[in-house]
Amino acid sequence: MPNAVEAYKRLERRFHDIAVLGDTIRMLHWDQATMMPPLGAEARSEQLARLEVLRHERLTAPDVAALLADAEAGAAGLDPWQSANLREMRRIADMASAVPEDLVAAQSRASSLCEMTWRAARRNSDFAAVRGDLQKVLDLTRQTAEARAAVLGGSLYDALLAEYEPGGNTAVIDALFDDLAAFLPDFLGEVLAKQQASGPPERPKGPFAIETQRALCREMAAAVGLDFESARMDESAHPFSSGVPEDTRITVRFNEEDFSEGLMAVLHETGHAMYERGRPADWRYQPVGRARGMVLHESQSLLVEMQACRSREFYEWAAPRLRQAFGGNGAVWDVANLHRLAIRVEPDHIRVDADEVTYPAHVILRYRLETAMLSGDLALGDLPGAWNEGIRGLLGITPPDDRRGCLQDIHWYSGAWGYFPTYTLGALAAAQIFDAAVKDEPAALPGLARGDFGPLMAWLRRKVHGEGSRLSTDALLAAATGGPLDATAFKCHLRRRYLDG
Amino acid sequence: MPNAVEAYKRLERRFHDIAVLGDTIRMLHWDQATMMPPLGAEARSEQLARLEVLRHERLTAPDVAALLADAEAGAAGLDPWQSANLREMRRIADMASAVPEDLVAAQSRASSLCEMTWRAARRNSDFAAVRGDLQKVLDLTRQTAEARAAVLGGSLYDALLAEYEPGGNTAVIDALFDDLAAFLPDFLGEVLAKQQASGPPERPKGPFAIETQRALCREMAAAVGLDFESARMDESAHPFSSGVPEDTRITVRFNEEDFSEGLMAVLHETGHAMYERGRPADWRYQPVGRARGMVLHESQSLLVEMQACRSREFYEWAAPRLRQAFGGNGAVWDVANLHRLAIRVEPDHIRVDADEVTYPAHVILRYRLETAMLSGDLALGDLPGAWNEGIRGLLGITPPDDRRGCLQDIHWYSGAWGYFPTYTLGALAAAQIFDAAVKDEPAALPGLARGDFGPLMAWLRRKVHGEGSRLSTDALLAAATGGPLDATAFKCHLRRRYLDG
Repeated sequence: MPNAVEAYKRLERRFHDIAVLGDTIRMLHWDQATMMPPLGAEARSEQLARLEVLRHERLTAPDVAALLADAEAGAAGLDPWQSANLREMRRIADMASAVPEDLVAAQSRASSLCEMTWRAARRNSDFAAVRGDLQKVLDLTRQTAEARAAVLGGSLYDALLAEYEPGGNTAVIDALFDDLAAFLPDFLGEVLAKQQASGPPERPKGPFAIETQRALCREMAAAVGLDFESARMDESAHPFSSGVPEDTRITVRFNEEDFSEGLMAVLHETGHAMYERGRPADWRYQPVGRARGMVLHESQSLLVEMQACRSREFYEWAAPRLRQAFGGNGAVWDVANLHRLAIRVEPDHIRVDADEVTYPAHVILRYRLETAMLSGDLALGDLPGAWNEGIRGLLGITPPDDRRGCLQDIHWYSGAWGYFPTYTLGALAAAQIFDAAVKDEPAALPGLARGDFGPLMAWLRRKVHGEGSRLSTDALLAAATGGPLDATAFKCHLRRRYLDG
Repeated sequence: MPNAVEAYKRLERRFHDIAVLGDTIRMLHWDQATMMPPLGAEARSEQLARLEVLRHERLTAPDVAALLADAEAGAAGLDPWQSANLREMRRIADMASAVPEDLVAAQSRASSLCEMTWRAARRNSDFAAVRGDLQKVLDLTRQTAEARAAVLGGSLYDALLAEYEPGGNTAVIDALFDDLAAFLPDFLGEVLAKQQASGPPERPKGPFAIETQRALCREMAAAVGLDFESARMDESAHPFSSGVPEDTRITVRFNEEDFSEGLMAVLHETGHAMYERGRPADWRYQPVGRARGMVLHESQSLLVEMQACRSREFYEWAAPRLRQAFGGNGAVWDVANLHRLAIRVEPDHIRVDADEVTYPAHVILRYRLETAMLSGDLALGDLPGAWNEGIRGLLGITPPDDRRGCLQDIHWYSGAWGYFPTYTLGALAAAQIFDAAVKDEPAALPGLARGDFGPLMAWLRRKVHGEGSRLSTDALLAAATGGPLDATAFKCHLRRRYLDG
């Protein structure tokens, strides 16, 4: 069927173009967050908006639908990677075409506007000031979900989730989160009691020179596997990982009083970067060569930050280096003390500052609230109250104001509905994958104690990074760990680290 | 004729897209030269190549030709700026369509290859090593010129020049350059004799801390008019000016032993930047809103660097600032001495290090050689000899090797044939425009002595920058200075500064 082969080849060329446009957009976003002078914002928005339109046009052009149909008619002639690639092309094209262009544009405008209102509202802790704008975002988000669900099937929430986690499913998330929500409050009580019994760890005293922190962060990112001949580390208000596999751009924000903030952010972003860098080179610009989704992406950052770099083994290597870099003296710089600091649990109002024990509570709350808002079960006027009640039930604390409550995160206000669950699903996957890695590769854990991430990273590249989007998240997890996404490994990990350790 | 109006409006939208793609390409080039880690080069080439193809496709799409014809049929309904815009659209689209796509691609590949060969050949001063690759570039350049001349008319060289200087014309350049070539050798002799009679100026002794140089360069660029809320200054191997009007990116290379290198480069690039920033805002993304061409562009950098910032007036303001910034002592930091250093003339082999008296000789030589190579009158095998003979005739010096001879510049090897004349035509225009400015705006010259570039820049914005591409270079010069491009003002300027001063 030469027609089908030719159609597939033409699709590869089209999607290659689309991938390069995406790479370009990423670079411009990186520049915006790290380099761009403030008055460049408007021209940059113009550039990004036009590139997004170009990308969208190329994805939804009539010939793509025709080529997909032709290629699918001859799919039997494709090899497994090509088949998976065609499946991903179909998924991406259907997602892009499902929502009418004027709805995409309206949603984008409403979100930009609401995000600006939110910045002031958060500063003033004034939810009422942003409620109207948020209602518009929610209404348009619901319309988007309806349009997408009409094509893709599944629930409205699944349709939103699909943008971040293909195949993500509300029923599965409900079950996992209900399990966790039942487990966490009692577990947290036990951890806090144990912590209290052993007294607080001591904190190294700053200030810690930014230059020293920067050099240390580069050294540790390099140990994980980042090569600065093909990567940069810069500063931005919020750390992130971007760029392309051959030219990684990670960012960090340093705190002069606490070096661990910058260091842990860099290790987290390095985890993301290693996933991107390990994507299958033969499929570099094709849909099947992309990272699978945000659950596995977050699993890779958390695997590095939480599983590997808050392990006792890691601190055996890192503690003497930290002591030397900062000229530290005394027991505060001992392995045991620094490790205790790294796994300190403290219920707090702010998600982004949360430890790995309390973090899931923040996410479960947001997930429950956003599904309720989307279905209409929760009116926006009731959000602040529902938020405070929810966090009290999960963590036993009450936010003193909405700034530290329902105004703290940008996601809803900027239109990123359906994103939150991926953080905690990623944490579950990280535990599950790390568990399998240290069992399957005996050199992985001992390596960390020598600063040798090689065996762990080689395993991850083979089992996760190099698979791209060939498999679904669950199929990849099953192949790598023996089963689909599950909370068991995460709960075992928490018990081991926080109660048995 | 609503059809024509609608066609014109659609062209405006298309060219807006094309301009934004161009802005994006510029940003990626800037990043490549300043930020990109070395191993990012291949992915970046991929991004740039695809964006160039996208831009070319949008420019040469069949609907553009149809829309142009429709709009031109109703051009009587357009206002003067719209008419000029339509004329520029036609020019740009014809230029893009004139050369077949496979020739564009072949030329681009051959140039990339030759540029790489040239880097090694220059290092080893081995012209023979790059001669074969250069022949391929020349052959393809000739084909490109033939394809373009067949559509645009004019000579082969004019067709190449048109890419950098619309309306540029070999007959005019020949006349101007012959005049200069006749004037310069004797004039240079007089200048050197006068210099020798008064003895050499003293050079301030370094090292000059890079941080201090950087702060000083920012201060002086800001004095010229650059606002660092909408601009950045970074470092790169070769200084350049890029970015967009709202987000200027200039670069510099510092020399610890000679602060004037970095400072003069920054002032030069600031001149380019001020032109871009002063383009007509209402036509920001339209062809008529672009800078007119490389002659006027170079005139604006040279006007700031050579006319304004090597004037006696400028040093009255700058000298005390330089002395204070570097903690300098003694007569070496006096206005008179620093000014004498700034206008020191010294025949040298290297164009980019040349002063304004000897610079035209370098350009005239290259222009004569490239026209001869293009016409076939000069075989590549004879280039090194012709070069050495030519520079001896103009400057009285002989390059010790080809590295300091015909291998020194990247232009021919990277396919930029027809570019060289714009440097010296720009120098002529700079003298002519500066002359008119200081006559027409009495506050312009006294302002420089106080570091106040406001009156000069306001005049330039009104007479040059804000005109975009509404007029031809000559028509703009006639409106601003009373006549078309001419060497008189430049020769007067040289006599005044180097013999009468």
